[in-house]
Amino acid sequence: MTRKHVTVLGLGLMGQALAGALLRDGYTTTVWNRTAAKADDLVARGARPAGSVAEAVAASPLVIICLTDYAAVHELLDPLDGELDGRVLVNLTSGTSQGARETAEWARQRGAAYLDGAILATPEAVGADAVILYSGPRTAFDRHEPALRALGSGVTHLGTDHGLSSLYDVAMLSLMWNILNGFLHGAALLGAAGVQATAFTPIANKGIETVNGWLAAYARQIDEGAYPAFDATLDTHLAAMEHLIHESEHLGVNAELPRFVKTLADRAAAAGHGGEGYAAMVELFRKPAA
Amino acid sequence: MTRKHVTVLGLGLMGQALAGALLRDGYTTTVWNRTAAKADDLVARGARPAGSVAEAVAASPLVIICLTDYAAVHELLDPLDGELDGRVLVNLTSGTSQGARETAEWARQRGAAYLDGAILATPEAVGADAVILYSGPRTAFDRHEPALRALGSGVTHLGTDHGLSSLYDVAMLSLMWNILNGFLHGAALLGAAGVQATAFTPIANKGIETVNGWLAAYARQIDEGAYPAFDATLDTHLAAMEHLIHESEHLGVNAELPRFVKTLADRAAAAGHGGEGYAAMVELFRKPAA
Ligand SMILES: NC(=O)c1ccc[n+]([C@@H]2O[C@H](COP(=O)([O-])OP(=O)(O)OC[C@H]3O[C@@H](n4cnc5c(N)ncnc54)[C@H](OP(=O)(O)O)[C@@H]3O)[C@@H](O)[C@H]2O)c1
Ligand SMILES: NC(=O)c1ccc[n+]([C@@H]2O[C@H](COP(=O)([O-])OP(=O)(O)OC[C@H]3O[C@@H](n4cnc5c(N)ncnc54)[C@H](OP(=O)(O)O)[C@@H]3O)[C@@H](O)[C@H]2O)c1
Repeated sequence: MTRKHVTVLGLGLMGQALAGALLRDGYTTTVWNRTAAKADDLVARGARPAGSVAEAVAASPLVIICLTDYAAVHELLDPLDGELDGRVLVNLTSGTSQGARETAEWARQRGAAYLDGAILATPEAVGADAVILYSGPRTAFDRHEPALRALGSGVTHLGTDHGLSSLYDVAMLSLMWNILNGFLHGAALLGAAGVQATAFTPIANKGIETVNGWLAAYARQIDEGAYPAFDATLDTHLAAMEHLIHESEHLGVNAELPRFVKTLADRAAAAGHGGEGYAAMVELFRKPAA
Repeated sequence: MTRKHVTVLGLGLMGQALAGALLRDGYTTTVWNRTAAKADDLVARGARPAGSVAEAVAASPLVIICLTDYAAVHELLDPLDGELDGRVLVNLTSGTSQGARETAEWARQRGAAYLDGAILATPEAVGADAVILYSGPRTAFDRHEPALRALGSGVTHLGTDHGLSSLYDVAMLSLMWNILNGFLHGAALLGAAGVQATAFTPIANKGIETVNGWLAAYARQIDEGAYPAFDATLDTHLAAMEHLIHESEHLGVNAELPRFVKTLADRAAAAGHGGEGYAAMVELFRKPAA
């Protein structure tokens, strides 16, 4: 049993992709899934089917877990007795930072090292350029980095706080939803004026790329806690937000999103940030709403 | 007076950048500004100062206007008598599609050709890779394309409907605000867990790039009106939205943004889109809120 032995627990869409990537990279891959038939295809490609969870865990020093949620993880692993001792568990199941920290403590009590992880990619990107974030002990990460790199080239160790990968995960998902909402609302707006979404896309792509290039400068302002307007002031943004609300209402599309965006900006302006740059909005996001 | 003669009305931050780009490209550039001193620097670089708006308009076949708002445009140009006849007016002032269409009609009555435009860039990008969108008669655009290209290489003619450039403008601004809100909320969330915004940025940059690459596929679904989930269903997104709200509350940061995002997605799921992909949300954005 060497570092080239890896176990994968959970063969849903994502678990199958993970096990497949390990097989392709020459790892001796032991697999287990509640619904056993989901292992068939992997076994045909060389994976070793385990007869039980205990057997699967015993087969490799590195155990990768990818189930629906943390409740499933505990339902599956709590009944084990001693098998976890000395193992490195890498949990790629989505959850909260609290769940990750609790599971780390649970693993510690069973003598296992624990890395929590978050996959910021779809199954197709696994084994290729998938971004997968890990948090927990650096030593466990370093020991198994080659196997983790086989899962996705965008492998990153965020720090020892087990909660970090879940936090980054939801922060990135949030960015994704906000981008998609902005794009879909824009597509609805332009659609009402007869423009196809596919015509809007190349310009949206270019605009997003531009905004993406600004974030580093905003981040420096956030870390310094000073938000001089190097481009436009919040007051200037507010005037344009009025235009967006007006256009949305005029074209009869949903105006809730721009109204919500303006409500937040109005509040930041009322708090004295009107003459500052947009990054000042972070002050508002830092505090729970009154 | 040739096509190499251009007039710029309005020498604020943006107007100065526009006139500067024309001068650099060898255009005979006539300038006028209410506060005359703002022309000094341009005049030192070769611009011709006009003694009045009428004189400025008379000096060139192409007149570029960049003022605070459409009210200022009309305050400035309504008093003119005959000077607009035969001119091509290019109005780069920000406004609404309705304002653009009304100004087009106003220009028509005065014998001027009218292009409305929107600058999707800061003054620094003008004369370089600035994206500037134009709408209105194609002939006027074609005749002056070289001068317009001098203002920014990302020059695009969207169509003959004068309202299009303003619509694209606010749609792009909306995308920008949504990206920035997502980023700033994420920075607040991670900040509460001790992560610097500058540490979050490279991962945010990569995530945004990834999402940007998905838009073309979403756009095709929007234009076809069918939203099969090729990545994750709206129901799957909803579960992760719960995690984000939970993390925000747990860390004591503002949870309004994720709650708002989830409210919209909940409504789309309640309308029967839970098993479809995220692009189905466009149906919700198309209709005014009940
Ligand atoms: N798919 C993606 O694009 C994606 C992207 C990033 C992150 N993720 C995350 O990856 C994780 C897995 O996602 P997936 O797409 O693979 O989901 P999935 O296809 O629904 O698979 C879920 C897996 O969990 C197992 N499971 C659930 N409850 C269980 C229990 N009580 N005991 C034992 N096994 C149980 C299922 O076993 P059965 O086969 O027996 O039902 C199956 O193997 C989730 O946390 C998800 O958020 C997914
Ligand atoms: N700056 C940007 O990053 C940016 C980006 C994209 C689009 N834009 C748009 O470009 C336009 C101009 O922006 P800016 O940044 O140049 O603004 P600015 O620096 O505030 O300049 C405003 C200009 O409008 C003139 N003006 C205002 N009211 C007037 C009136 N009643 N009569 C005559 N002149 C009047 C001002 O003259 P005085 O000098 O005499 O006050 C000044 O030349 C705006 O619509 C803005 O939304 C700007």
